[in-house]
Amino acid sequence: MKSHAMMETYPATINLDRDLLAGTIDVLVECAQTCTACADACLSEEMVAELRKCIRSNLDCADICATTSRVLSRHTGYDANITRAQLEACIQACRSCGDECARHAEMHEHCRICAEQCRACQEACTELLASIA
Amino acid sequence: MKSHAMMETYPATINLDRDLLAGTIDVLVECAQTCTACADACLSEEMVAELRKCIRSNLDCADICATTSRVLSRHTGYDANITRAQLEACIQACRSCGDECARHAEMHEHCRICAEQCRACQEACTELLASIA
Amino acid sequence: MKSHAMMETYPATINLDRDLLAGTIDVLVECAQTCTACADACLSEEMVAELRKCIRSNLDCADICATTSRVLSRHTGYDANITRAQLEACIQACRSCGDECARHAEMHEHCRICAEQCRACQEACTELLASIA
Amino acid sequence: MKSHAMMETYPATINLDRDLLAGTIDVLVECAQTCTACADACLSEEMVAELRKCIRSNLDCADICATTSRVLSRHTGYDANITRAQLEACIQACRSCGDECARHAEMHEHCRICAEQCRACQEACTELLASIA
Repeated sequence: MKSHAMMETYPATINLDRDLLAGTIDVLVECAQTCTACADACLSEEMVAELRKCIRSNLDCADICATTSRVLSRHTGYDANITRAQLEACIQACRSCGDECARHAEMHEHCRICAEQCRACQEACTELLASIA
Repeated sequence: MKSHAMMETYPATINLDRDLLAGTIDVLVECAQTCTACADACLSEEMVAELRKCIRSNLDCADICATTSRVLSRHTGYDANITRAQLEACIQACRSCGDECARHAEMHEHCRICAEQCRACQEACTELLASIA
Repeated sequence: MKSHAMMETYPATINLDRDLLAGTIDVLVECAQTCTACADACLSEEMVAELRKCIRSNLDCADICATTSRVLSRHTGYDANITRAQLEACIQACRSCGDECARHAEMHEHCRICAEQCRACQEACTELLASIA
Repeated sequence: MKSHAMMETYPATINLDRDLLAGTIDVLVECAQTCTACADACLSEEMVAELRKCIRSNLDCADICATTSRVLSRHTGYDANITRAQLEACIQACRSCGDECARHAEMHEHCRICAEQCRACQEACTELLASIA
C-alpha cells in the first residue's frame, strides 16, 4: 500500500499521528476486501441458509470499512467529530462481523481469516480513536 | 424511489417502522447525490481555494450517507448496534456538512440546496435513531 | 431527487443534455438502492440456495450503478472516454441483473420490481450514451 | 492483503487465474486509496485552481477502481460480460487519471506516485482482461 508514501507528500498539516493513521487505512482497506470476499464465499457454501447473518454482517462491514478508509485518507478541512463518529461505527461493525465470523471459523476457513482481519481492524480503529479523544 | 415498494416485498420481519425506514433511505440516497454534486460545483467555482473545507465535508458526507443507506436497506440478520452507530456517524456528517454549506449558502445556490438537504437528512436519521434506542 | 435543481446551479458548462443527464442520475441512484434491497430480500428467501446468482448480480449492479451515478454527477474536467466506458459497463450490469431477476419475477415480487428497475436504468444509460457518441 | 489467502478458501470453482486475479484486486484496492489521497492532496495545494481536472479524475478513478475490485472479489454466479465491461471502464479511468497526474508529476510528488499507481493498475487490468477474452 502507498498510504504511508502518499501521506508524506501531503502539502499541509495532518492532525493525527501519520504512522498510526496510515497503518489504520491499510488495515481498513484490507478488511473491506476480506469482508467482500467472505460474503461471496459464504454465498457459495452448501449451508448458505445458515450463513445469512454472516453474509449480511460482511456486506455492512465491507461498506463501513471502505467509507472509513476514505474519511481517514482525507486531511483537508479536518473535522474531528466526523472522524470520531465514523471510527466508532467502524469499531462496532468490525466487532459484530468478527463475532459472527468467529462462530463459523472452525468450519469455514474464509470465516476464520475474516474474523481475524475484523479483530485487527477493530484494534487499529480503537487505537486511532484513543489518540484523537 | 422504490424503497417503500421493495420493503413491502421483504419476506421476513423488519424490526423498524417500515415507513420511517423507507423515508430515511430516500433522504439518505438523495443527500449522497446532492453532496457529490455540491463538491463538484464548488470545485468549479472561481473561489475554489476558499471552498476547500466545504468540498471535503461534501465528499465525506456523500460516502457516509451512501453507506448508511445501504446498511438501512438490509434487514436480514439485523444488528441494532451497527445501525445505531452508523446512524450516529451519519447525523454528525450531515451536521458538519450542513453547517459548512450554510456558510456559503448566500453566495452559492448549490451550497444552499445542499445545506437544506443535509438538515433534512440529519433530522430523518435522528428520528429513526430515536425509534431504535 | 435534487439532481435537476443541483445541475441548474453548476457554475460552468455541462457538455451533455441537462435533463437527460439528471434523469439518468435519478434512475441510477434508484436502481442501486433497489438492487441492494433485492439482494437482501433474496438472502432471506427460503430458497436462498437457488438465488445465489441473483444475489451476486444484484451486488455487482448496485456497486456499478452507484459509481456510474457519481461519475455522471461530476461535470468539472469532463472526460467523455470515462463517461462512455462506465456507461457501457453499467448497461451490461443492468442487462445481466435484469435478466437474472426476470427469471424469478413470477415467484418473487422483489425480483419483479428489480427487473423492471434494471430495464429502466439500462434504457436511460443507453439513451445517454447515444447522445455522447 | 489477504486476497490470495481468501481466494484459496473459496468453496467453488473460480473461472479465472487465481494469482492474476488476486494480484489485480490488490493493485485496484491500492489505486483506489492512492487516488482518494491524491484528490485530497491536490485540494490542499496553493495552486488548487489549476488542479481541478486532476481532482475530478482522481475522484472518478477512486470510485471505479473500488467498484472493480468488488466485482473481481466475487466469484459466485460469475458473468464474464460484467467483468469484461467493468475492467474496460477501469482501464479507461486509470489511463485518463494516469495521464492527468503525469502532467503534474514533476511539481507534485503525490501526482507522481499516483500516476505510477494508475499505470500499474491499468496494466494489471489489461492483462486480466486479455486472459478472459
